[in-house]
Amino acid sequence: MAYQQLNLQTLVDFLKTLDEMKTIFSDFNHLEVKEVGDGNLNFVYMITNTQNTEETVVLKQAVPYVRLVGESWPLPRERMNFEIMALEKENELCPKHVPDVYYASKEMSLVVMQNLNKHRVLRGEIIQGKYFPLLADHVSTFLAKTLFYTSDWYLDYRSKKEMVGKFINIDLCNITEDLVFTDPYEKNETNSYNPKLTKEDINFIHEDRDLKVVVAQMKYKFMNNAEALLHGDLHIGSIMVNEEETYMIDPEFAFYGPMGFDIGAVIGNLFMSYFSHSYRQKLLGRKPYAYRKWLLDTTEKIWNEFARKFDVCWTEHQEASNNLYWDYTEGKEHFAHLREVTLKRIFSDAIGFGACKMMRRIFGLAKVADIADIQDLDERAKIERMVLQMAKEMVIQRENFSSIEELVDLAKEISPLI
Amino acid sequence: MAYQQLNLQTLVDFLKTLDEMKTIFSDFNHLEVKEVGDGNLNFVYMITNTQNTEETVVLKQAVPYVRLVGESWPLPRERMNFEIMALEKENELCPKHVPDVYYASKEMSLVVMQNLNKHRVLRGEIIQGKYFPLLADHVSTFLAKTLFYTSDWYLDYRSKKEMVGKFINIDLCNITEDLVFTDPYEKNETNSYNPKLTKEDINFIHEDRDLKVVVAQMKYKFMNNAEALLHGDLHIGSIMVNEEETYMIDPEFAFYGPMGFDIGAVIGNLFMSYFSHSYRQKLLGRKPYAYRKWLLDTTEKIWNEFARKFDVCWTEHQEASNNLYWDYTEGKEHFAHLREVTLKRIFSDAIGFGACKMMRRIFGLAKVADIADIQDLDERAKIERMVLQMAKEMVIQRENFSSIEELVDLAKEISPLI
Repeated sequence: MAYQQLNLQTLVDFLKTLDEMKTIFSDFNHLEVKEVGDGNLNFVYMITNTQNTEETVVLKQAVPYVRLVGESWPLPRERMNFEIMALEKENELCPKHVPDVYYASKEMSLVVMQNLNKHRVLRGEIIQGKYFPLLADHVSTFLAKTLFYTSDWYLDYRSKKEMVGKFINIDLCNITEDLVFTDPYEKNETNSYNPKLTKEDINFIHEDRDLKVVVAQMKYKFMNNAEALLHGDLHIGSIMVNEEETYMIDPEFAFYGPMGFDIGAVIGNLFMSYFSHSYRQKLLGRKPYAYRKWLLDTTEKIWNEFARKFDVCWTEHQEASNNLYWDYTEGKEHFAHLREVTLKRIFSDAIGFGACKMMRRIFGLAKVADIADIQDLDERAKIERMVLQMAKEMVIQRENFSSIEELVDLAKEISPLI
Repeated sequence: MAYQQLNLQTLVDFLKTLDEMKTIFSDFNHLEVKEVGDGNLNFVYMITNTQNTEETVVLKQAVPYVRLVGESWPLPRERMNFEIMALEKENELCPKHVPDVYYASKEMSLVVMQNLNKHRVLRGEIIQGKYFPLLADHVSTFLAKTLFYTSDWYLDYRSKKEMVGKFINIDLCNITEDLVFTDPYEKNETNSYNPKLTKEDINFIHEDRDLKVVVAQMKYKFMNNAEALLHGDLHIGSIMVNEEETYMIDPEFAFYGPMGFDIGAVIGNLFMSYFSHSYRQKLLGRKPYAYRKWLLDTTEKIWNEFARKFDVCWTEHQEASNNLYWDYTEGKEHFAHLREVTLKRIFSDAIGFGACKMMRRIFGLAKVADIADIQDLDERAKIERMVLQMAKEMVIQRENFSSIEELVDLAKEISPLI
């Protein structure tokens, strides 16, 4: 079917043509279509049978430009191919935490999938100070499975390289290269920031030798290190939650990149939430300690559980394979050492990438509501300075943290947990 | 034209059909065809007009198996596509040191190119103890130009990623993954080695924790780090020389990989030549000092000149581009620091990869004639132990050498330059 942009009028007729929808909807005569306005890049609709609201789907369609900006920022709609391929692969590897895809069309640049209408976007929930006791367990499982099982530690040499080729995602990677690794660190016209930030705050980032060199290295690593299939944009706005379930959504930035980038995205965002709640908990009329403690505990647990689960996947795979390389008396112990140094390297990558994701949210084009929605600009600037101080230390010292607890201690030094 | 394997009989008729050959040969009636027997993978022919021997070409054609082994080792003939694309790209970037391509056909898996009949294979020449005063200058130019101008430091984000996709060279990379990074370090049936090497010599490599872990990391880096277009097999048998000229040939292993791999291949091979000449110079009736000194000086100069030229390319490119990132008072100095740490990282990669290329030549399937052709197996084993000792130290300590001179000092410690 040739590409056409669907709208509220044409959408139901389109769905009626699909066999796949006949197993979802018992009846096409009472479908209600709502546009969900919060996508940056794409059009998103919820379609529900008003006679049986359990019969519901989400349809997401790409247009040849950035939805939020309009036709003045063209962006090939082929980006949807990456989202479709990534959703299918991630769902295969970790079905519990990735929405089911009911129908996908590269020609139409659209996907019809599970409606997560019993879930809400994690960022909004964290801003409200809600707890999700299973979050760390779920996110660490998603990270361990999607990263390990798409890497050379698991895949055979041919499948891995074919995957790398399929996931060369030029346009969306370029957005990250610009917005995460370049523009926020220079006097770029796309930047915007809190007017209360001073020239000193800016030069703290823009003119520091070690920081600039390391950020350039992190960008280079992002561009060159085709280690695993990444979600590519795993901030807490790409996670849908309720108390029982957690889903990672919107993987249109998916590509083969360094594992630490996805891990760092989650960790960096949680540190920003931690700093923001030094103020937000007071706004909510609470004492800040308990919620901020939960945020730090969750951060710790995401890394520690990721590392443990990744190690289990690797060990199981090794034991099931017929590998001569470690086949000698001390081989088992030596293989354990390889896993240890590899996880240490992934950890330092995660810290470095997490830091870049933090700094860009202060100076770059796209903000996080946790901080940017704070009305009192002086309070906001205080939090922003905490983020910058933490991120700078993280990226420069990324190889010198020996545990997530040490990293969490740094956050507590910058903003005491009281 | 559908694929057909050419032979001594059909080859001239094929050449007659090509317009490109009409500018090379004034006459097709006196062509002499010789098969050059020394290709491992492919058939290679020299075609010369006996009436005017300046009119001459080389034709190289891939067959769907490894020529040296036969049909029992199948290997897709599409490998020739990579050689053609690499020759064309390298020739564009560094025409002085890459043969001219006159005609290429992916359908026929063949290339017709400049006949380097005034040049000889560098390995054979080094075995004979010949000097090439321009070698280091030429090789370092080739490395600096092909590596810099195919990397993200130069190319725009789109061209680079399109190149990476084009050069996913699954089958030939897999040969390297097995023969350079896996089999030689385990009890693999493909290995073969000097019977004078003892169980201790073998376990010095096969069961050493740090070495095994680092070799696994180097393999992973080889498989994941799509930094620049590599030649992929730049040992001294892939270099053709005479006193004035140097050509890098046979880039069928070309792919996007870590820069240090090509540099390490050259350096590792020259260290093996250095060790071999502790004995070979005596065989040639000479005192070993002068030639071995030249080998070490050449090795030093290849790295130092590569680093200098790479740095010049990068600086020139930066000055010509409109880059805000370093646009502040101390930006120039900070950018210099980035170049410095980047070259240091490329250097430690080169040392690590060079070491793997050395070890595999002692235990793995493919040997180097410098060492393996030594008839006296005890003398050969002495040299092989020097290579193993050097390589082990190199790969484990790869990040701790601060200059090529330090690395050369290690070679002199292991085998004094006297």
